[in-house]
This record gives sequence, structure tokens and C-alpha cells, in this order.
Amino acid sequence: MHRLLILSRRASDYHAFVEAAQLPDLIITSTPDPSGTAADGATFDLAFGEPALLRQALPSLPGLSWVQSTWAGVEPLLDPALRRDYILTNARGVFGPQMSEYVFAYLLARERKLFEKRSSQAAHRWDPEPPTRLRGKQLGLLGVGTIGAAIARTAKHFGMRVKGYTRVSEDSADVDQYFHGSLPDVAPAFCADLDYLVCVMPDTKATRHMVDETLLRALPPRAVFVNPGRGGAVDEAALADALQHGRLAGAILDVFETEPLPADHVFWRLPNLLITSHTAALSAPADIAPIFIENYRRLLRGEPLLYRVDFNLEY
Amino acid sequence: MHRLLILSRRASDYHAFVEAAQLPDLIITSTPDPSGTAADGATFDLAFGEPALLRQALPSLPGLSWVQSTWAGVEPLLDPALRRDYILTNARGVFGPQMSEYVFAYLLARERKLFEKRSSQAAHRWDPEPPTRLRGKQLGLLGVGTIGAAIARTAKHFGMRVKGYTRVSEDSADVDQYFHGSLPDVAPAFCADLDYLVCVMPDTKATRHMVDETLLRALPPRAVFVNPGRGGAVDEAALADALQHGRLAGAILDVFETEPLPADHVFWRLPNLLITSHTAALSAPADIAPIFIENYRRLLRGEPLLYRVDFNLEY
Repeated sequence: MHRLLILSRRASDYHAFVEAAQLPDLIITSTPDPSGTAADGATFDLAFGEPALLRQALPSLPGLSWVQSTWAGVEPLLDPALRRDYILTNARGVFGPQMSEYVFAYLLARERKLFEKRSSQAAHRWDPEPPTRLRGKQLGLLGVGTIGAAIARTAKHFGMRVKGYTRVSEDSADVDQYFHGSLPDVAPAFCADLDYLVCVMPDTKATRHMVDETLLRALPPRAVFVNPGRGGAVDEAALADALQHGRLAGAILDVFETEPLPADHVFWRLPNLLITSHTAALSAPADIAPIFIENYRRLLRGEPLLYRVDFNLEY
Repeated sequence: MHRLLILSRRASDYHAFVEAAQLPDLIITSTPDPSGTAADGATFDLAFGEPALLRQALPSLPGLSWVQSTWAGVEPLLDPALRRDYILTNARGVFGPQMSEYVFAYLLARERKLFEKRSSQAAHRWDPEPPTRLRGKQLGLLGVGTIGAAIARTAKHFGMRVKGYTRVSEDSADVDQYFHGSLPDVAPAFCADLDYLVCVMPDTKATRHMVDETLLRALPPRAVFVNPGRGGAVDEAALADALQHGRLAGAILDVFETEPLPADHVFWRLPNLLITSHTAALSAPADIAPIFIENYRRLLRGEPLLYRVDFNLEY
């Protein structure tokens, strides 16, 4: 018999989805409150929920053998001060379509001059200013996992050219040209002709401030930077400086080093920057619960779990 | 020897493209001014340009045997009072990708709450309000020619379900369900579950005010109407009424019965309507010149020309 703790702001939704799967040998407890787990914490061998809540509960869950995260990002559980004596799996493969809708909403809005057209309308002004087009433009991807691959697929659908920077992988056929190795070394070739640079890197030691002054200076001034990935990958001071001095045409930022973005942050005051408040891709229970269910079935069959996180690589 | 008159606001661009093709047996004259053609008009057997300009020049071009329009819409040349003693071909097959960028810019902007997020940012307010998604939503197409097919393809890319209304054709495999026959008869089944209705009908007697009160009442109140096609297809008073009374969630309009949209038109004052001033798809010489060049080669070989307009069907 396994005992599962569901620890999530949407605990009741997840509870309903997991219960509906009628998984064998499973007793489910669910709560949105990490402090409520201390009393019978010792009995749980499985946990499923948000990494930030799980982190708080971790000390009172000594018997954990497997934790399934409802998020892609598991940074709260990667603190070297924390235990690593359990299998950690995260949510993958479900965010690509959402991320693609996010990225292309903003790319198309820029090409089609959506905000400008709306201003003209507010002034009751017929505005025949021609739009520009995605077709033929260049998209660069920092990171080509399942999310990057989904973005590359949509870029090709719209007739863009796609360049991808990865550590080693070259899995997506929608990337026209891959770059590897030291980013400062490849930045000139990778960045030179980009219209858009999209960062979908995980937040790890290796990606910290990967988008720095050197990378930003390698971009042409017409380029727009899009970050639906992780705030830690960006040197925010360098980005603000590039935007303020016209070395970059714009930025669309979903994630930040500190969230919510502090009220006095310079980003709030930059006209060529759009802020989307960490809403690019949300974990919907209908998408995420099936990952736990599939992994639980694998656990029972003694098969390797999907989307296992390597505590050393941090993803 | 053929004599070609290029009559276009972008005459010099078209002249350069046609000249670069080094077509045999062709003498080219180009001008943006229809009044300048009267003097040697009798010598031209071919014309290539904008229908509105060609209409003005028509009386002074008695020898015309073939006219290639730079636009998709050829209404100015369809007036029954005008000559029809020549072959008329229009521009097709090149507007689909542009139209698709237009339509999905606005659909994604709506789902991702672009304008709301920007208002929050203007107030320096972190706004975690979750977006909605195109995936799983229903798109209806009035007309599935090359433009409709391109829109259907993008809709499927984003995981939407697509319904198409056409006279008889069922050419696009990206349409999940086709509807034919009298629109008032099929409107309940066609419209009932649509999130978006996109009109890409040509402007003909048969399509005039096709989007009328009956059709609009068949749509659910959550639906948004998008018109990048032709203004004549819409009963504008009925549309304004539906928007003003909450029977329709919104409209995105590129074309109107009178353009530019008159300053006193009710559309300027409706908050749930976006106006894009006839910019959805523009004729770029780089896209359109190859159509003339291909058709000229077909003419020399005695083959049927592409995209011939039927003066009776009006498309």
C-alpha cells in the first residue's frame, strides 16, 4: 500500500483527477496547507504538488521515496541544504503548446502593430500603416527541450528561420541550425541576424545570467528578447541598460529574478518592455494529473519514471 | 509582340520585377497615373495593376485582351456597365499566410489578454490573471478558398476545431466539418458552438450582407466575429446592434462598406470592437509580380491562365 500526500493550491482538483483514475494500492490525502502535514507526515511515501509547498513540508515527510512536481521548475527543491534521498520528477511535455501561444501572441502583436492600431482607433483615426510579417524573420531559441521544440514548430509554421542553442541535443527537426559550446564564443554567430531571441532555459547554476551584456550586445538593435523561461537566466541590469540605450528594440518578460516584480524595479518604467506577470504557461490539473497517474503506474510496474530530475544537472 | 501597361501605385516596383524576368516579345510601359494612358492606350493588349486604376483607364484601352489584377478583390472591374471583352485574372494564393498572421495575432491577443496585461503594466501592477487558450476552441470559416485554407491550417496547428461554410468546395483537409446550402438554414448548426467566426468571402451579389442579424443571433454570446474579407459581406447595423446588446463578445474588423470608415460611424465608439483599417493583407510586388510572370508565360504557350475571374460568379 502507498500513501500519497497531494500538497497543492489546487489540492481538491488534483485529488479528484487522481481518484478518478482508480489507481490500485493507493491512499490519498490532500491539502493546500504545508503546515497541516506534520502530524502524520511520517506515513507518506509519495508526494505530488507545488515545489514551494513541498519544500516547507519536507522536514515532516521522512518516508518520501518519490515526489512528483506539478510545475516544470523545481528550484525550491534543489537547494543543496535540502534532502535528495528521493526520486524527483517534474512536469514536462505539457507546456509547449501554451508557451507557443504566449510567444506568438506577442511576436504577432509586434509585427501587426496591435497596440499602435488600437491607439489610432482610440483617436478615431483610420490607420493604413502597413504591418510587417513573421514570414522570413529569424528566431533564436536559448534551449530546445519540449517547450523550445513547440516554439520552433510554430515558428516554422509561420515561415520563420530558427536557430537553436543547446548543450548537446539536436532533437528538433524544426531548428534550422544548432549552436553548442560556450555561449560567449558562439554568441556572435548565433545572435547576429536574429529578429527575436526566446529564452526557455531552466534555472540552473549553468544558466544563471546566461543572457548578459555580451549576449545582448551580439544581438542586432532591431531584435526583441522574449523570456517565458526563468528569471535567473537574465542579468536584469544588463537588459535594462540595453533597452534604455536602444541596443535592443524591445523585451517581453514573463519571469523575473524576484516575483512579483518589486514596485520600484526599473522594468516598470521602460516603454519598450512588456510584462506578463508569470502567466505564460500555467499548470492545469487536467494536463498535470495524467503525469502523476502515468508515473504511479510505472512505479507499480517497477519501470523508470518519466521526467526524472537530476539533482546535479538541476533539470 | 505584346505591349503591357503596368498601372499601379507601385508601378516602378512592378516594372523592375517584370523586367528582371526577361520575358520574350514584351514591351513594358508603366505609370501610376491612369489619365496618362489615353494618348497611346490603343496599342496595349495587356494590363497589370490595381483594379481601381484600371477601371479609370479602361475606356482608353480598346485593344485589351488580358488584365492581371494586383489585388484579390476586383470589384471595380465587375460593374455590369463596364466591358467584359477581355480575360481578367486576379491575385490569389499569396494572401493566405498574411491573413493567417492577421487573424491569429488578434485571436491570440484575445486569449492571452494582451490589452489587459498592458493596462496592468501601465498601472505598475503585477497581474497574475490567467490567460485562456486557443487549443480546444472552435473556429468557423465563412469561405474556404486559399485564404480560408491557410487560416484553417494555422487553427489546426494551435489545436482548434474548424468548421467551414462554402458553396460546394471541400478542398481543405484542415476543415473538420463542412456546411453548404442556404446560410439561414445551416446557421444554427454552423454557428452554435463557435468561439470565433472568420469571414473571408469575396464581395459578390451572393455574399452581400451574408453576415446579418439571423447569422449573428445564431452565434453564442461568447463568440468573436473577425472580418478580414470584404465589407459588403456584413450588415454593419446588425453587427453594431449585436455588439451593443451583448449578443456578441467582440469583433475585429479590417474592412467596411465605406472606406476609410466615416468619422461618425458607430463602430468607432464600440468598446468591444477593434478596427485595423484594411491592412490585413497587402499586395507586395515581390509576391504579386510572379503571378503576372507565370501567367504571361502561359499566355505565350497558349495555356489557360491561372486565377481567371468569372464575370458572372464575380470571383
